[in-house]
Amino acid sequence: MKQVNGSGDDLATAPVAPRPPPSPVRAIPTLLRGLAQVDFMQSAWCGLFFAAALFASGWKYGLFALIGTAVSTLTALVWQVDGDRVLAGLEGFNGALVGTAAGVFLGPEYLSSWLMAAAGSVAATIVTAALVRLLGTWDIPTLTFPFCITAAVLTIAAPEFQRLWHGRTGLAGLVEPAQGPTGLGWADLWRAFFANVAQIFFMPQWYVGLLFLAGIFVASRRAGVVASLGSVVGIVTAWALGSPADEIRAGLLGYNAVLVALALCGVFLAVSVWSVAYAVIGAASSTGVTGALSDFFTPVGGHTLTWPFCLTTLVFLLAAPALPRLRRTG
Amino acid sequence: MKQVNGSGDDLATAPVAPRPPPSPVRAIPTLLRGLAQVDFMQSAWCGLFFAAALFASGWKYGLFALIGTAVSTLTALVWQVDGDRVLAGLEGFNGALVGTAAGVFLGPEYLSSWLMAAAGSVAATIVTAALVRLLGTWDIPTLTFPFCITAAVLTIAAPEFQRLWHGRTGLAGLVEPAQGPTGLGWADLWRAFFANVAQIFFMPQWYVGLLFLAGIFVASRRAGVVASLGSVVGIVTAWALGSPADEIRAGLLGYNAVLVALALCGVFLAVSVWSVAYAVIGAASSTGVTGALSDFFTPVGGHTLTWPFCLTTLVFLLAAPALPRLRRTG
Amino acid sequence: MKQVNGSGDDLATAPVAPRPPPSPVRAIPTLLRGLAQVDFMQSAWCGLFFAAALFASGWKYGLFALIGTAVSTLTALVWQVDGDRVLAGLEGFNGALVGTAAGVFLGPEYLSSWLMAAAGSVAATIVTAALVRLLGTWDIPTLTFPFCITAAVLTIAAPEFQRLWHGRTGLAGLVEPAQGPTGLGWADLWRAFFANVAQIFFMPQWYVGLLFLAGIFVASRRAGVVASLGSVVGIVTAWALGSPADEIRAGLLGYNAVLVALALCGVFLAVSVWSVAYAVIGAASSTGVTGALSDFFTPVGGHTLTWPFCLTTLVFLLAAPALPRLRRTG
Repeated sequence: MKQVNGSGDDLATAPVAPRPPPSPVRAIPTLLRGLAQVDFMQSAWCGLFFAAALFASGWKYGLFALIGTAVSTLTALVWQVDGDRVLAGLEGFNGALVGTAAGVFLGPEYLSSWLMAAAGSVAATIVTAALVRLLGTWDIPTLTFPFCITAAVLTIAAPEFQRLWHGRTGLAGLVEPAQGPTGLGWADLWRAFFANVAQIFFMPQWYVGLLFLAGIFVASRRAGVVASLGSVVGIVTAWALGSPADEIRAGLLGYNAVLVALALCGVFLAVSVWSVAYAVIGAASSTGVTGALSDFFTPVGGHTLTWPFCLTTLVFLLAAPALPRLRRTG
Repeated sequence: MKQVNGSGDDLATAPVAPRPPPSPVRAIPTLLRGLAQVDFMQSAWCGLFFAAALFASGWKYGLFALIGTAVSTLTALVWQVDGDRVLAGLEGFNGALVGTAAGVFLGPEYLSSWLMAAAGSVAATIVTAALVRLLGTWDIPTLTFPFCITAAVLTIAAPEFQRLWHGRTGLAGLVEPAQGPTGLGWADLWRAFFANVAQIFFMPQWYVGLLFLAGIFVASRRAGVVASLGSVVGIVTAWALGSPADEIRAGLLGYNAVLVALALCGVFLAVSVWSVAYAVIGAASSTGVTGALSDFFTPVGGHTLTWPFCLTTLVFLLAAPALPRLRRTG
Repeated sequence: MKQVNGSGDDLATAPVAPRPPPSPVRAIPTLLRGLAQVDFMQSAWCGLFFAAALFASGWKYGLFALIGTAVSTLTALVWQVDGDRVLAGLEGFNGALVGTAAGVFLGPEYLSSWLMAAAGSVAATIVTAALVRLLGTWDIPTLTFPFCITAAVLTIAAPEFQRLWHGRTGLAGLVEPAQGPTGLGWADLWRAFFANVAQIFFMPQWYVGLLFLAGIFVASRRAGVVASLGSVVGIVTAWALGSPADEIRAGLLGYNAVLVALALCGVFLAVSVWSVAYAVIGAASSTGVTGALSDFFTPVGGHTLTWPFCLTTLVFLLAAPALPRLRRTG
């Protein structure tokens, strides 16, 4: 499987021969593709919209994302990771998320957060190389597992280190059953629809999500439609199960559904009636998995990140070859 | 490895060609085999005893189990999973457990629990397909991993969703060292012996366990003896380590030992003096693992399920090819 | 890959033909090599220093370690594990750690702790056989994963069993951010340097670490230098991140860094400028991972053990083939 579009990894498990590294002129589009690959898009124009969305949510967050993308891409170059992967942005997107996560979860006002964004992005590239090999055994792409692993270590470890945590109180607690009104009004619905796309980068604002979604449409109208479908499935499932309305409105129960829908319908599995159905089941499942993982991380003060997307998509992609109604892309 | 008896999965990792689906006339025995496969038996008569045991514990639980078996089997048919697996009941047993778990842990009095039994059973079939491929790499069957994964998500997530949890208090807490009398009388011993078989389906009643054990003997007298051995090893180990007597009597420390003994002596490894010894070591180990996993799930409000059986058996089956004294069946 | 030096496992996944078992005359050096393999050394002289270090920390701990090594080695012989692995000490080192852990964490004054040291060492050999097969898929050695898995089960389960726990209070709690002075004086630095080596066997005394380090130098001067480098990196990283000084001084934040440095520079990857850099990145990463796993195990009352070393090294070894600057040894 050699994916041109999407973060389908080059799955060679043997040592990879070094390719000529990209020239400096290609640096900007490579970085932008790194941002876009978070949502499986391999388009610099899409990445430009993503950068705009991040800067719209706060210039520091935009900078955190760019630093993460640049550091992880540079790490891949220094250690001579396969050049095709670098150019496609596949060595940048986990760093983009690690960098942003360092800003959001450790606080953009501390120098230490900027240093950890860089250090974490170095680590993300090594974790990526490890997972390309591990998951390649079953022809499965890394998804955002490298980000999830790196950012989980970073955010769970942070309170143990006083120069990272700066005396704040801890986040760990015991799980309490969810409470609060569950009814959704029109304003909740449309805000949730866009926030689901923004929360992939940890942002709750609807207009940030609008910019992200516009970027996806610029890269591929079909992907834009599928992402929208995923967002709707996430909202409907969360409402049906009885999530608090304010969590739905903030996009916390739907961002994984957006990513799962994209992965299962068009990116890794060819579009068909069956893959649409599969994507809907997957997106709905990921909403349940979001609840479980949110509880799982509560006693250790961890964040849910995109673990629900990664784990759900891993299961659904592993299962696909045994289900003859589904076909791989590429 | 192509197992006729036992949940040895068809381990093809390549896409499977669709076979003709089973005719409606075969539906009843297929469902009953689905129940029986929870204990590795591929016998409709055994499944009839299992159904009787479940209805004896409460008609709603019997219905939950049948719905789970039917929905997961049907899901496999719709998505064209290999027909041999369906007919053998291998696409039903995880659904049987997911359905029963939904009834037991979410409450049989709520409509939402019935809907989640069905939804979870759809998911269990997809998880099964994923694990057939993943574990097939090492020629390892899925065991009840698909049930454990699906039911863990379902039960840990439930308190996050108000329409599933209905305002009950949470289960999460911090681990406290076990307390209570550890001495076992005769009445404790024989109740524990049968309850160990019943708890595989989350039931504590000795007469329910008696019916389950009778079903195993109907399918295979050897398997009945091995299951009995596992139950005894579970009791002895738990007593020796100092478990509270009331937990032993309820079967909570021995149901994994029953399943481990079956798996390691007769189902996946050929019966011999050495595999009996291996099964005894495995069954005793699983009792210790039960204590560890019970603690592990406490802070997130999760249930131990058959995780100890799955993880212990996984390790012992992975190890078997390096131990020349042991031979695979089939 | 057939490693002469270091715990590189014989990675055959097919059933292994039995070799003639070692004669009794070879028993003593085999046991000593078992101790030495904890730090990847295959030298009986090194093992003698390790035994001296353990007895220096307390004669009971020395005895726990020897019993663990002997029982796990004997288990491998009884079940006919490949004789080359036994002679190299590769079937002893996880038992050495399990035995010592049983003494340290369950209390050396209880008969039950001695029995669990033996039982756990039987289990460690089976877990080793399982992981040789599992990790062999990617040409990865078992590291101390078998110890980590067995000792995690043992220590997390112990409070559930009254004859193991003897009425002590539980260890489980919620994570609180670290506190306490972070400045390091000269006495902190040199104590931490040696304690980092001692804590691999759970000991905090600097002179115990000195004896361990001397043993490594006896086996290989290069390995001694690399272990020292790892210890320094662990101290510098922990100080830079802001760990409490008393934890650094006790070696709690650097013992994983020592093992990671050894693994990535000389044992599994050939020594070069690049592998030194890789080892430094890995050792620093493992210090962060130590913080994360310490928090992860807090709510279940577990211990960090050498999980940070195992997981960090697993990732870095999986990644290595994709990074052409690095070469495997052997």
